[in-house]
Amino acid sequence: MILNKAQIDAHNEKRLAQHKRAFDFVSGELPDAEAIIRKLVDFQVAIPSWALGSGGTRFGRFSGGGEPSTLEEKIEDIGLLHQLNRSSGAVSLHIPWDIPKDAQAIKNLATDFDLKFDAMNSNTFQDQKDQKLSYKFGSMQHVDKAVRQQAIDHNIEVIKYGEELGSNSLTVWLSDGSCFPGQLNFRNAFNNTLESLQAVYAALPEDWKVFVEYKAFEPNFYSTTVGDWGQSLLYASKLGDKAYTLVDLGHHLPNANIEQIVALLLNEKKLGGFHFNDSKYGDDDLTVGSIKPYQLFLIFKELVEGMDARGMNHATDLGWMIDASHNVKDPLEDLLQSVEAIMLAYAQALLVDSKVLSDAQLNNDVAGAQEILQSAYRTDLRSLVAEARLRSGAALQPLQLFREEKIRQQLIGKRGTNSIATGL
Amino acid sequence: MILNKAQIDAHNEKRLAQHKRAFDFVSGELPDAEAIIRKLVDFQVAIPSWALGSGGTRFGRFSGGGEPSTLEEKIEDIGLLHQLNRSSGAVSLHIPWDIPKDAQAIKNLATDFDLKFDAMNSNTFQDQKDQKLSYKFGSMQHVDKAVRQQAIDHNIEVIKYGEELGSNSLTVWLSDGSCFPGQLNFRNAFNNTLESLQAVYAALPEDWKVFVEYKAFEPNFYSTTVGDWGQSLLYASKLGDKAYTLVDLGHHLPNANIEQIVALLLNEKKLGGFHFNDSKYGDDDLTVGSIKPYQLFLIFKELVEGMDARGMNHATDLGWMIDASHNVKDPLEDLLQSVEAIMLAYAQALLVDSKVLSDAQLNNDVAGAQEILQSAYRTDLRSLVAEARLRSGAALQPLQLFREEKIRQQLIGKRGTNSIATGL
Amino acid sequence: MILNKAQIDAHNEKRLAQHKRAFDFVSGELPDAEAIIRKLVDFQVAIPSWALGSGGTRFGRFSGGGEPSTLEEKIEDIGLLHQLNRSSGAVSLHIPWDIPKDAQAIKNLATDFDLKFDAMNSNTFQDQKDQKLSYKFGSMQHVDKAVRQQAIDHNIEVIKYGEELGSNSLTVWLSDGSCFPGQLNFRNAFNNTLESLQAVYAALPEDWKVFVEYKAFEPNFYSTTVGDWGQSLLYASKLGDKAYTLVDLGHHLPNANIEQIVALLLNEKKLGGFHFNDSKYGDDDLTVGSIKPYQLFLIFKELVEGMDARGMNHATDLGWMIDASHNVKDPLEDLLQSVEAIMLAYAQALLVDSKVLSDAQLNNDVAGAQEILQSAYRTDLRSLVAEARLRSGAALQPLQLFREEKIRQQLIGKRGTNSIATGL
Amino acid sequence: MILNKAQIDAHNEKRLAQHKRAFDFVSGELPDAEAIIRKLVDFQVAIPSWALGSGGTRFGRFSGGGEPSTLEEKIEDIGLLHQLNRSSGAVSLHIPWDIPKDAQAIKNLATDFDLKFDAMNSNTFQDQKDQKLSYKFGSMQHVDKAVRQQAIDHNIEVIKYGEELGSNSLTVWLSDGSCFPGQLNFRNAFNNTLESLQAVYAALPEDWKVFVEYKAFEPNFYSTTVGDWGQSLLYASKLGDKAYTLVDLGHHLPNANIEQIVALLLNEKKLGGFHFNDSKYGDDDLTVGSIKPYQLFLIFKELVEGMDARGMNHATDLGWMIDASHNVKDPLEDLLQSVEAIMLAYAQALLVDSKVLSDAQLNNDVAGAQEILQSAYRTDLRSLVAEARLRSGAALQPLQLFREEKIRQQLIGKRGTNSIATGL
Repeated sequence: MILNKAQIDAHNEKRLAQHKRAFDFVSGELPDAEAIIRKLVDFQVAIPSWALGSGGTRFGRFSGGGEPSTLEEKIEDIGLLHQLNRSSGAVSLHIPWDIPKDAQAIKNLATDFDLKFDAMNSNTFQDQKDQKLSYKFGSMQHVDKAVRQQAIDHNIEVIKYGEELGSNSLTVWLSDGSCFPGQLNFRNAFNNTLESLQAVYAALPEDWKVFVEYKAFEPNFYSTTVGDWGQSLLYASKLGDKAYTLVDLGHHLPNANIEQIVALLLNEKKLGGFHFNDSKYGDDDLTVGSIKPYQLFLIFKELVEGMDARGMNHATDLGWMIDASHNVKDPLEDLLQSVEAIMLAYAQALLVDSKVLSDAQLNNDVAGAQEILQSAYRTDLRSLVAEARLRSGAALQPLQLFREEKIRQQLIGKRGTNSIATGL
Repeated sequence: MILNKAQIDAHNEKRLAQHKRAFDFVSGELPDAEAIIRKLVDFQVAIPSWALGSGGTRFGRFSGGGEPSTLEEKIEDIGLLHQLNRSSGAVSLHIPWDIPKDAQAIKNLATDFDLKFDAMNSNTFQDQKDQKLSYKFGSMQHVDKAVRQQAIDHNIEVIKYGEELGSNSLTVWLSDGSCFPGQLNFRNAFNNTLESLQAVYAALPEDWKVFVEYKAFEPNFYSTTVGDWGQSLLYASKLGDKAYTLVDLGHHLPNANIEQIVALLLNEKKLGGFHFNDSKYGDDDLTVGSIKPYQLFLIFKELVEGMDARGMNHATDLGWMIDASHNVKDPLEDLLQSVEAIMLAYAQALLVDSKVLSDAQLNNDVAGAQEILQSAYRTDLRSLVAEARLRSGAALQPLQLFREEKIRQQLIGKRGTNSIATGL
Repeated sequence: MILNKAQIDAHNEKRLAQHKRAFDFVSGELPDAEAIIRKLVDFQVAIPSWALGSGGTRFGRFSGGGEPSTLEEKIEDIGLLHQLNRSSGAVSLHIPWDIPKDAQAIKNLATDFDLKFDAMNSNTFQDQKDQKLSYKFGSMQHVDKAVRQQAIDHNIEVIKYGEELGSNSLTVWLSDGSCFPGQLNFRNAFNNTLESLQAVYAALPEDWKVFVEYKAFEPNFYSTTVGDWGQSLLYASKLGDKAYTLVDLGHHLPNANIEQIVALLLNEKKLGGFHFNDSKYGDDDLTVGSIKPYQLFLIFKELVEGMDARGMNHATDLGWMIDASHNVKDPLEDLLQSVEAIMLAYAQALLVDSKVLSDAQLNNDVAGAQEILQSAYRTDLRSLVAEARLRSGAALQPLQLFREEKIRQQLIGKRGTNSIATGL
Repeated sequence: MILNKAQIDAHNEKRLAQHKRAFDFVSGELPDAEAIIRKLVDFQVAIPSWALGSGGTRFGRFSGGGEPSTLEEKIEDIGLLHQLNRSSGAVSLHIPWDIPKDAQAIKNLATDFDLKFDAMNSNTFQDQKDQKLSYKFGSMQHVDKAVRQQAIDHNIEVIKYGEELGSNSLTVWLSDGSCFPGQLNFRNAFNNTLESLQAVYAALPEDWKVFVEYKAFEPNFYSTTVGDWGQSLLYASKLGDKAYTLVDLGHHLPNANIEQIVALLLNEKKLGGFHFNDSKYGDDDLTVGSIKPYQLFLIFKELVEGMDARGMNHATDLGWMIDASHNVKDPLEDLLQSVEAIMLAYAQALLVDSKVLSDAQLNNDVAGAQEILQSAYRTDLRSLVAEARLRSGAALQPLQLFREEKIRQQLIGKRGTNSIATGL
């Protein structure tokens, strides 16, 4: 193991006095800091298996070193993250980039790191070597039934891998769409996709969920067949009770009000999962909270309120995953920053007094409602998040510990500078 | 009457030779020009009663002269348009800007001009003098049940006016939403709005339709409670079979694929009506076809194909209306240009050979599909549209006739330079 | 006077213990809290004379009550704001909405409230009663030289009013542009505008500056003749050393990187002034910091760094103004929130350790640079801003004091519910 | 040679009657068809050496077959295009993807196909094998002088290659920028880039031009150091008379008015070149004219008018190039469609009667100006473009001939299904 408990303890010891000063102040000012901390401790964000290496754009990819080149090494990296923050206790696998050849061994390895297997991800947006038919013109939408069947079969295979690993959900992201007017018959594409999804749905185990992810554009640049939450909701409604919409923050048209979408999907009991990242222009896949942290807070405010209104368990009733790319940062550092941003936004959202907010809303006290939200957002809750980590045995400052222990250098030492992780 | 048949005939006579040259050429090249012309003759676009005066922005309004200041004068203006192009044979009334005090007289006047009454429009986005409760914080979404009831009552009153005039549909555009995070509980706003719409729906006559219009933003700048087609479809689906979504071209986030939305709504049997305009930045309400004429064609291509797939009548099974503003143009000229752009896009869409296109799609012949669409679009069908007008007794060149006869100057002579039409 | 020192003192007294707790904690954690506080005390944001009443949209305006209906009452309102926060010590006048008929009396009144006169604003985007020529088709760009001259003369008149009041800068915002392709010859429009601005520039007193404000769209919806920072910089460069670009946060295309623009303009020594507001979709004119507070911080970070690099005085070397609309909030409350958001972002920017940041940048330590910025931003500096107010004799919690003292109700008592302020 | 004159003649022969019918009609209606045809014959669009293979996205690449795998094969493909349309008579080379190892042989080959060498393109946005220093954090903006020097040296080397081939311009597209707030000091990045460009400028041969291309975002997702036309113009102005701005249609923020930018750059004598493509969402690199053909026409209208106002030669005084990607189309078919769209837009722009338009503008006749533009745009000029091809010895219907002669299949036969072209 790259990191041991003694190193974490030493790190925490050094920072404890400063931490305690901040924590004592802020927890003293809050009505019930302990309730927030308990929820923070429970909250876990899945790390996708493709997020451990450098990401790229169509213009190029600048690999860092020490990337994990096997599934085992990826799980080790996620295990390391989880050691550092005790909030990354789940893996989201992508097939076929990370096929678990020996499922039991992989499961054991994950258990060693206290990791579970969250939603499985299928891939029908690329052609794999030896793949019989091409997805160049789509998969589940394809005009050729044989291609659609191939995509269905692949998804069913992914479910099978998931069952072996103890996962209980499938995320279907389809890049299907078109690049030019006229290329697609929109209605046929929709109906084909629905029919294909229904075939996958029929193969879904009893206790599984399927998440229908939507995206406004890219890699198709004229239309996307699951292009917005309205389309995803249509599919999910037609599929049945085990089908849900999955929201990825970067998959919207400019200026979309994502927090409202979240609220409406919860109202319809159809929100299933979440892919966190941040963006300025498109699906930029930047570090969570790096561009619009207030929007992230507003989304969490809706999540907390909407889930509470339904009596849902924050930690378990939605699938939470990071889906970012790491073009210019160390992937592990980026993931640490992303998890931190998520925990902070979640803590801030928990701080909102929903009763007082509701009163302001009932009085159309717009300025007052803003004060309530901003007061929660402006409160510096970093020490609460750190306290939750401390109590879970993780590091007060995960990123600093990562750097102090020169973990990247160690990984490079073990894996070399040229190891390449599968992914984009 | 400002314009008589003799004037139109004289105008046509002068242009006939040139027209015939173009028409003969193009109709000779087409497989079935006559079929297109017949459909063009039948197609009618409603003119809203607020579109006869200069529009404005929040920064100001620059009135032209000769605006109609009564409902009667407005109907006269629409009658004039219809005389000029025989494609504007319907009025879409807005209440309370244009309350028909004597319904029978108004109906008779309209009949004199061969005009019907299309969808009625309610208004709960402004406060009227002597209105009991304010819509400052919304209408059907409002936290106060009494405000919601006032909005419901208003819509029912609008239906009543419509029944008297022979209309059979109601368009509900709600500006309800919020300007700031925290202002609204999104779920309550949605549920209140749904409940309010249900009360209106319950009052809908048997043979009526209600159109739920959506809009991304403005006048609310943070959230809108019927903000996109997904939300509108949710309301319409929950309301029942008489409820439909209405699409206004300018009411979308940047880059939205409106033609795909149209196709999907037709696929769901939930497209009810259309508001035509054009835009570059937001709800700019510019002349139809003035900015993105190819997009207009693509939308019409989906309309034609989707309606044909459902066996719908192009002329009667959807509500067609112009909804533009005329900040820098003469409103009547602007409307003439808008109707012309609509007829042209419709003609081009009718020219698309759906069998050949379908074959290209089934072969994933993307370049070929583009050729088919662009070939229809590039064909100069202006003479076909003119021929349809000629056969209907209208002018070959409506805008030129309007100018030749100095109609605006005549209207100013009759109504003065300072007459102001109700509207925005 | 609506508010007296005793009321402020009583308010502060009540909150002092809580304030001191927060201030002592946070100032104890900072390297030099006092330096930040001193800068906060000096920083003043001008309030435009049109911001004291409810704003509206083209769809309507919902006035609150107690709006100031004279320039004197507006100055009283700004004086009140300044009493509450001691950060609003300047008035930005708009001509002709607020012509100072007796300049000396107005100046005395302002002095009584400790207010200065910041940049003067001209208006050639509306037609005033008795105005000779119309601005319907633009002002400084107009094809008619007489209209251009009228616009020039108006600006020179505004300068004259400004001189009488002790202002020393002129903000020129032109709505000039076009709504339709073909309407304008872009080059002529540019050259006419340049020539007009040169005529105004020639009339500028020696110690004055002129700010050329740009805006992407609205009220013109196809092109704007001073449409982006590139155009504004072109005009300002051609005009001369007294001409600068003015940045209004809401006047950009979607996703523009405003902080980079600010940095580049400072690099070119051509940034002159700033209009603060916030937005989600367009020029929404929402309360500063209500939508994208992190962006506001990033902008201030560039301002601080860029001004420091030039040895500029933060408080005096740029023109700072709020330019928001208040459609659903009490205007005074909205302004208090806006000023608070500005002060907070400024304080956070001052907290950034530029040496440490520069080191991270020189090492391409992207994650580290983000930590530095976010650490400053996450620090809860509200008590520092409050402390600056306390030391200046203002209220610890201006908005709360405004409400406690029922100031709006008092204003309604004095001015009535139907008083209407000039503006949009 | 894949295609010979006899095949072209046979193709034309078959279509001649239909062509003549259309051409006779439309040329009979135009004031001076011959003048337009002459200009069409002269107009040539350069084909970039990376455009002959399938493009891809970060999600994958679906190669078609028969891609050219050497520079020689690429020139053959461009030669083939030029045979088909006689409008693609130039190659735009990219270094290091297509280094001409034997310049004289390459030049001779190009001459055989009647091709010239247009602007040379450098690449400092990717790391090449054996490259000493990485461009991960930028090239000309880099904090490390050695990286900047490497980028400078590369550009100078590209110029050298260009001199050998007879090119006389260099296009510099920098992807330099940042993905996260704090990553860059914007001012330093600007100043470093300027200094680097100055070093390249100093090495520019006397009769050369350098084009500074800008792009709003991608591959950097927070800031770009040459991000908009304003920045590009700043660099070009500081560099000197041989430096110009290059406009790529896809490199703008949503809704930007590109035609106005073109007009202003021509007004400043600083427009140097053009990259054609089309897009809906971002830098989608779609076929020219496939999404917004009217915008393309409007841009050409400004080009024609602005160049005429400066007495510029349309065919030679700006650099014209296609810069599209071909994810789902045959690259050669795509290029044929792109060139066709360009020629058509150019023809339509030439048809605009600038005197009549100017009169309408001087009268603020907005509706009239729109009629003038749309009348030119609506006129079906495909037969004029075809006539220009006919007279130049090219095919009446290049795309159809390409398909009739099964050229792709021939290329696959020669090169195999797995040949891969260098590029993105």
